[in-house]
Amino acid sequence: MDIINYRRSVRSFTDQVIEPEKIEQLLRAGMQAPSARNQQPWHFLVVQNREQLLKIYETSPYARMFTEATAAIIVLMDKTNLKNELMAPQDLSAATLNILLRATELGIGSCWCGVFPNSERMASLKVLIKAPDQYEVFSLIALGYPQDADAFRFVDRFDPTKISYEEF
Amino acid sequence: MDIINYRRSVRSFTDQVIEPEKIEQLLRAGMQAPSARNQQPWHFLVVQNREQLLKIYETSPYARMFTEATAAIIVLMDKTNLKNELMAPQDLSAATLNILLRATELGIGSCWCGVFPNSERMASLKVLIKAPDQYEVFSLIALGYPQDADAFRFVDRFDPTKISYEEF
Repeated sequence: MDIINYRRSVRSFTDQVIEPEKIEQLLRAGMQAPSARNQQPWHFLVVQNREQLLKIYETSPYARMFTEATAAIIVLMDKTNLKNELMAPQDLSAATLNILLRATELGIGSCWCGVFPNSERMASLKVLIKAPDQYEVFSLIALGYPQDADAFRFVDRFDPTKISYEEF
Repeated sequence: MDIINYRRSVRSFTDQVIEPEKIEQLLRAGMQAPSARNQQPWHFLVVQNREQLLKIYETSPYARMFTEATAAIIVLMDKTNLKNELMAPQDLSAATLNILLRATELGIGSCWCGVFPNSERMASLKVLIKAPDQYEVFSLIALGYPQDADAFRFVDRFDPTKISYEEF
């Protein structure tokens, strides 16, 4: 399966709960992401409790998909032992994408909701999940088995005008 | 092939030139990345000219891999028509990672060199490649066929202490 081509944002989910071993596979994929000087600045909070998922939505009204998601992975920055703080958001983006791609492979729908660098969103979510001071919320990933049978169809986004060769 | 597990930073390359159709596959993968409000804020400059690759190294002395790389993809932010400027660096990180993952699948070694948000590096590279004002250099990807036969071996980065379930 071409996970790069078939990954798409999925926002509508069935009630089927994601199996613990699949959740672990998603987290393992996140931790295989590249990071600046291999600093691995991540921490992952897995939420499957329905009440808490609804509270994520209440804190993040743009994130309606959490009313249907059966799980969330909250990707956090761990600020202890950073070797290259400026690059940490890029490392965390890579970890987030690896999780989306593995989810696609496992037939799990996913949607990346940006949080960082919006300090209001970061703060309200940090309070909700009672994260210790060393962490900052970077992104939210909504997860669940897709409602739509064609959730993973390929939509070609190739645009040759976005390429230059050798020089501008 | 499990591209998530076998992608690694590769910094030592053979002289074998990367075929144009493989370069296009890498660019297609970059453009399949998720982006905030689907803004697709990217532009890609492909460099295969040896002299220019060496100049990238001269501008970026931390990037010694460009002395051996047979190609570079320079990932740029196109600042026109951004719908969510704050999230654009995350979109560009996703595009960069998709290129690394597709490269792994094609047997091509790759290394992500962060440029943004270091304004000095961004400025000197922008001058080098003569990028019009609307663009900013986001990252450099060194590419080439790996020197080492085991360049793609799996190194398990799983760390269960980086996971929390339901609450901190």
